[in-house]
Amino acid sequence: MSMTAEILSIGTELLLGNIANTDAQIISQGLSELGINVYFHTVVGDNPARIKQAVEIARNRSDIIITTGGLGPTYDDITKETLAECFGKRLVRDDSSLERIGEYFAQIGAEISESNARQAMLPEGCVVLDNDWGTAPGCAFEADGKHVIMLPGPPRECEPMFKERAVPYLRKLSDSVLVSRNIRIFGMGESAVEDILHEYMQSQVNPTVAPYAKEGEVMIRVTAKAENERDAYAMTEPVVDKVAEMLGDVVYGVDIESLEEAVMLLLKERGLTLASAESCTGGLLSARMTELPGVSAVFVGGVCAYSNDVKINNLSVPEEVINQYGAVSEQVVYSMAENVRKKLGADIGISISGVAGPAASESKPVGTVCIGVSSHMGTEAYTFKLRGNRSRIRTASVNRALDLVRRHLLDGGTN
Amino acid sequence: MSMTAEILSIGTELLLGNIANTDAQIISQGLSELGINVYFHTVVGDNPARIKQAVEIARNRSDIIITTGGLGPTYDDITKETLAECFGKRLVRDDSSLERIGEYFAQIGAEISESNARQAMLPEGCVVLDNDWGTAPGCAFEADGKHVIMLPGPPRECEPMFKERAVPYLRKLSDSVLVSRNIRIFGMGESAVEDILHEYMQSQVNPTVAPYAKEGEVMIRVTAKAENERDAYAMTEPVVDKVAEMLGDVVYGVDIESLEEAVMLLLKERGLTLASAESCTGGLLSARMTELPGVSAVFVGGVCAYSNDVKINNLSVPEEVINQYGAVSEQVVYSMAENVRKKLGADIGISISGVAGPAASESKPVGTVCIGVSSHMGTEAYTFKLRGNRSRIRTASVNRALDLVRRHLLDGGTN
Repeated sequence: MSMTAEILSIGTELLLGNIANTDAQIISQGLSELGINVYFHTVVGDNPARIKQAVEIARNRSDIIITTGGLGPTYDDITKETLAECFGKRLVRDDSSLERIGEYFAQIGAEISESNARQAMLPEGCVVLDNDWGTAPGCAFEADGKHVIMLPGPPRECEPMFKERAVPYLRKLSDSVLVSRNIRIFGMGESAVEDILHEYMQSQVNPTVAPYAKEGEVMIRVTAKAENERDAYAMTEPVVDKVAEMLGDVVYGVDIESLEEAVMLLLKERGLTLASAESCTGGLLSARMTELPGVSAVFVGGVCAYSNDVKINNLSVPEEVINQYGAVSEQVVYSMAENVRKKLGADIGISISGVAGPAASESKPVGTVCIGVSSHMGTEAYTFKLRGNRSRIRTASVNRALDLVRRHLLDGGTN
Repeated sequence: MSMTAEILSIGTELLLGNIANTDAQIISQGLSELGINVYFHTVVGDNPARIKQAVEIARNRSDIIITTGGLGPTYDDITKETLAECFGKRLVRDDSSLERIGEYFAQIGAEISESNARQAMLPEGCVVLDNDWGTAPGCAFEADGKHVIMLPGPPRECEPMFKERAVPYLRKLSDSVLVSRNIRIFGMGESAVEDILHEYMQSQVNPTVAPYAKEGEVMIRVTAKAENERDAYAMTEPVVDKVAEMLGDVVYGVDIESLEEAVMLLLKERGLTLASAESCTGGLLSARMTELPGVSAVFVGGVCAYSNDVKINNLSVPEEVINQYGAVSEQVVYSMAENVRKKLGADIGISISGVAGPAASESKPVGTVCIGVSSHMGTEAYTFKLRGNRSRIRTASVNRALDLVRRHLLDGGTN
């Protein structure tokens, strides 16, 4: 029988609505992949009595309690003290954690404060989960047949701590291994994907095939369960191939993270380089490309031509073209893509100019976005009508542009 | 005494991590503004027994239960049935809701289905909350001294239903208003801020003063409770001033969202423009600046000079300077900041070049970041040692650079 887990998020900032509980989302996704059922999430503030009350409820209905938050150095941070008390454990100093915290402060040229030293106090006999992403160590222990795992609250610490520390710990509690493969899709909506795959998904038991909607994308996850990782992986292979075949070229990659990664891999494969010229997206495409380690081999740089003056003076877009067609036009992105490619000495130029809102401009409605792609084979320009608020339109514009580069490369963008 | 509320979110998709619980966040924000304390969030799946269990727990510890989700037309949607049963109420057909649902389907040229007609079945004697954003009506009732409010789950229905329907209902139950002010801090850690403010925070009862750590920043929230908004706001004023005075120039703004917003506001105030030249951050600074509506008045654009060739050919950084000092050097960012300012015709140039990792480069350790600021008053260059993974170093670099622009403007960067 599979185990059940409850996520107990501790932090008044969640109850005030300052942040959404994305930690619980990330952990839930991961537990689902491990085959562990999550029946409840609970959020409680930095209040010892209410935390205790929530722990009592959780230990009565769940096998595993994963807490997030309350491991920081301040007086509000009482998760370890409170959980240890609930399970009748003392806090003892973990010297190795104290040393790690000391090193952190030495590096930034500061003395370790008493409140930071408190972070090295952990429940006796626990497994320490080293935090390579911040100062607060996590921990895990078993008591009264229940497993307790404590993770820090800040999402950029919680996510890696869960994936790199808690998941390996949880894997050992289970006797089978799950392997998941992710098939990434861009340019087809969730219901259209489901229409194509519905029958096939229903017929699959092990591996299972399930769709997930992400921001502007769909992902199909193929998950196999076996005694060891190699067998589980092998079981996924024919299913991944089948799904990719059924969906066609909207599949941009398997087991990769993003469209920009797909573009980077294709550029490396073809030995080509890319440069960007961005107006309404203001550098978001280049920022996303350069988030990838190793991208310097294929991405040379870009120009954020936010004002028309920069388009004219630094990207040599003819002023009369802007006057005649407007900055958001296929003529302008054509020129931007071609010129950035030549000026920055890249094989491919990609350009974006659009109306991200909230105000319409040049009497063009919010969401009008023009994109240009240029290579030695020629230059093409497209117009899209995108929906949503400013942030969503900007993100969707970058996604469309990256998908156009990908398709351009697949269509034979070779040297 | 103020009332306490619990948000009970119902939906298996939340427990699978398909979506984050943004409904709970939006509702929590609104309840906090109404002066209603939220002590718990609970998430439970589409399972009658577990929903009942969660309702029993909630009614024992909270005055108000707000449910989200489970009002749709499918068999999974059992919130109304289950909550009505918990509070001993029958479901009866609400003719006005049935009519509204019928009209909705008539508009899209379809017949109303039996499952949609089920959505008009509501707890007897409830206040119907008309849904102008979807088909599922919400409802509110009082039973056994507890208030129950049910809202639909999809965020684009839940948010307006809460704000336009539930808030007016709740206002009638409450006799006080909360006003919160946010003081934003950059360049001082959470524990250092607490060391300065600890005694003062503890001495404050109304308004309260509390610290929140955000990604790389600290925020101090001042919250006052009064009979009306104007009085509550007035009560915050001397406290906000006092906190700002105690912390000094690490306070970059009050009631604004980000460093980039502080920079935009200062640039507008001074009538100055900004241009950026980015290497390791690859356009992240320009992307963040251009996320702000209305920034085009002060931000002209930037150059993402990721490769050395682009630094040399497009930003006129002397090749010999790169060869002698390396691309990550104060000499190079000096040249980048000055040249981007002149080439793009801006009043201020900001530049960043660093080692974001994971690989070290030019025998400089990961986290070494150089930043230059240039204006007609001259150009300055700085070196920072930042910590974390690639993404964190890039974000921290942009924060440092924006803070340097802010300080440069405060120090008299006038025309």
